[in-house]
Amino acid sequence: MNQPLQNVQSIRWRDDTLQLLDQRLLPHEEVFLNFSACSEVAEAIKNMVVRGAPAIGIAAAYAVVLAAQNHYGNEGWKEAILREVHALRESRPTAVNLSWALSRMQKRLDGTGEQPVIELLDEAQAIHEEDVTANLHIGEAGAKLILEGSRVLTHCNAGALATGGYGTALGVIRSAWKEAKLQTVYADETRPWLQGARLTAWELQREGIPVTLICEGAAASLMQQGMVDWVIVGADRIVANGDVANKIGTYGLAVLARQHGVKFMVAAPTSTIDMTTPRGSDIPIEYRAAAELTVVGSSSVGPQDVAVWNPVFDITPAELIDYVVTENTTLEAPDKERMRAAFR
Amino acid sequence: MNQPLQNVQSIRWRDDTLQLLDQRLLPHEEVFLNFSACSEVAEAIKNMVVRGAPAIGIAAAYAVVLAAQNHYGNEGWKEAILREVHALRESRPTAVNLSWALSRMQKRLDGTGEQPVIELLDEAQAIHEEDVTANLHIGEAGAKLILEGSRVLTHCNAGALATGGYGTALGVIRSAWKEAKLQTVYADETRPWLQGARLTAWELQREGIPVTLICEGAAASLMQQGMVDWVIVGADRIVANGDVANKIGTYGLAVLARQHGVKFMVAAPTSTIDMTTPRGSDIPIEYRAAAELTVVGSSSVGPQDVAVWNPVFDITPAELIDYVVTENTTLEAPDKERMRAAFR
Repeated sequence: MNQPLQNVQSIRWRDDTLQLLDQRLLPHEEVFLNFSACSEVAEAIKNMVVRGAPAIGIAAAYAVVLAAQNHYGNEGWKEAILREVHALRESRPTAVNLSWALSRMQKRLDGTGEQPVIELLDEAQAIHEEDVTANLHIGEAGAKLILEGSRVLTHCNAGALATGGYGTALGVIRSAWKEAKLQTVYADETRPWLQGARLTAWELQREGIPVTLICEGAAASLMQQGMVDWVIVGADRIVANGDVANKIGTYGLAVLARQHGVKFMVAAPTSTIDMTTPRGSDIPIEYRAAAELTVVGSSSVGPQDVAVWNPVFDITPAELIDYVVTENTTLEAPDKERMRAAFR
Repeated sequence: MNQPLQNVQSIRWRDDTLQLLDQRLLPHEEVFLNFSACSEVAEAIKNMVVRGAPAIGIAAAYAVVLAAQNHYGNEGWKEAILREVHALRESRPTAVNLSWALSRMQKRLDGTGEQPVIELLDEAQAIHEEDVTANLHIGEAGAKLILEGSRVLTHCNAGALATGGYGTALGVIRSAWKEAKLQTVYADETRPWLQGARLTAWELQREGIPVTLICEGAAASLMQQGMVDWVIVGADRIVANGDVANKIGTYGLAVLARQHGVKFMVAAPTSTIDMTTPRGSDIPIEYRAAAELTVVGSSSVGPQDVAVWNPVFDITPAELIDYVVTENTTLEAPDKERMRAAFR
């Protein structure tokens, strides 16, 4: 795999085993967990050992290889693999990359010859490599839009950790930084999981890209003071009319960006595009446990029995998005017609 | 003191001692700290043992009594008290209630007779009692604006804890709840200090007012889904043109509220009005330590050496505010002319 620019790698295949960097422990501990069973990977996806739409898809693809390793040779092995694929598909609902990757793996399984394990591993590695390549192209294309001296705000983590490597939103930021176009990056903390503080700040610091942490409530004030030129985010799903599902808080930033004349870019690989879903309101939104808000690290920060509304994604309508950037396409002002022309 | 409706009291005067409920330990521990020196109270204000604009003013007023207790009788006692008042005034810059309360105490000191300690205690207690009375009137006036079945989002904590008792924004919420006008209250967490989770949810739960916790990023989605009718917040300073300084994140909520047709109310006592400052941009904004973002409870949640931009207040321009409610005045669509007519 050619990854000259990427120095964070959260997904590895070693000795018939899937290794995932446990993102729950960052930024303080860098621990890889080993997986040899598909169901364990499904749990790891649910529990956010691995997170980020493209990364989930890649991890799931490798999980199918684990299923094949464990079932191939037994009677009904193909059905057994398909049952595991089905369980994987249910692990998280919003990011479409998961079901996209699993459909690819299933297709390869359908047409498999005498060495299904090797063939499926080949497919999983292709998905992984293609994602890294797509990231590099997204980075290049996104950076083209950015003027010298730009200040960028990013939300959540759409970095190397969230992808096969390099990142989508952080891919654009990496590329723009290499081209000396960036003045600074603001990472918001992104409650409840604090991906901004724990992951994005960590990723950028490792590469010497200047990053400043802000709380999410400070984004509006930052824009009001003219301190931001771009908001750049990733996506969990981009649907037929150009609406985008992404980490909770994205929609509010898009409203604020438009209000303050700040440009708003969504960077994502084509695997994030879902032309079969017409509108953002049709995207299934995942709700997660109350404890994600009431417990931070080892500290309880709220009444234990308080009611919590914890949707972890929101929908940004297409009209608030200035650019959707994929590995092949830079789409300005996405709408239904432009989406159809670009992705069908 | 007549406080029939108030069951949270964070500031008490007992046996020549100021007692402050340590708000850093809520919601898990209810510990009162005792103060017998003025300088210790200044530290407690800086360290957020006590926070909330009106509460800071009241605590500072009692601190002047402590200064009088310690200095009266010594040579140069008046000057010694004034030096302590000066230090108190510097403890936090944004909330105007602090300097308002200290000016009142200083005026009383200037005209003091033979029993300065008793006179100053009388003044501090008057400031305290008047604040509670103002809160009750604010609550009543604010509740008048609210229709039955309303859903309210509040930011930070403008409750009994932030005031002499009862609260400003939470005073309105308490009164509206008593009048059976509220369907539910959403409290956002309010990074970095998590006042929403730690203080507001705790206060409302104690009284059986239905409260649901959301992360700040979820506010936009909540409004998008039509789940909020009012945003109600307190204020740290309201200036001559109607601009409001309040907890960081308030301005973004005001933009989102206007965008979604959600009404926006600022509830505050007259002691929060500062007619000598022309515009919001003239208000000094306090910046606090990076560790407020990178450490939560006992858990480090970000790289320790990351740069942080941590202004703890922002400015909401008057044009985004539907109502300013004080104990005497309900001002719709505040602007320079209406502010002058109401408060001068």
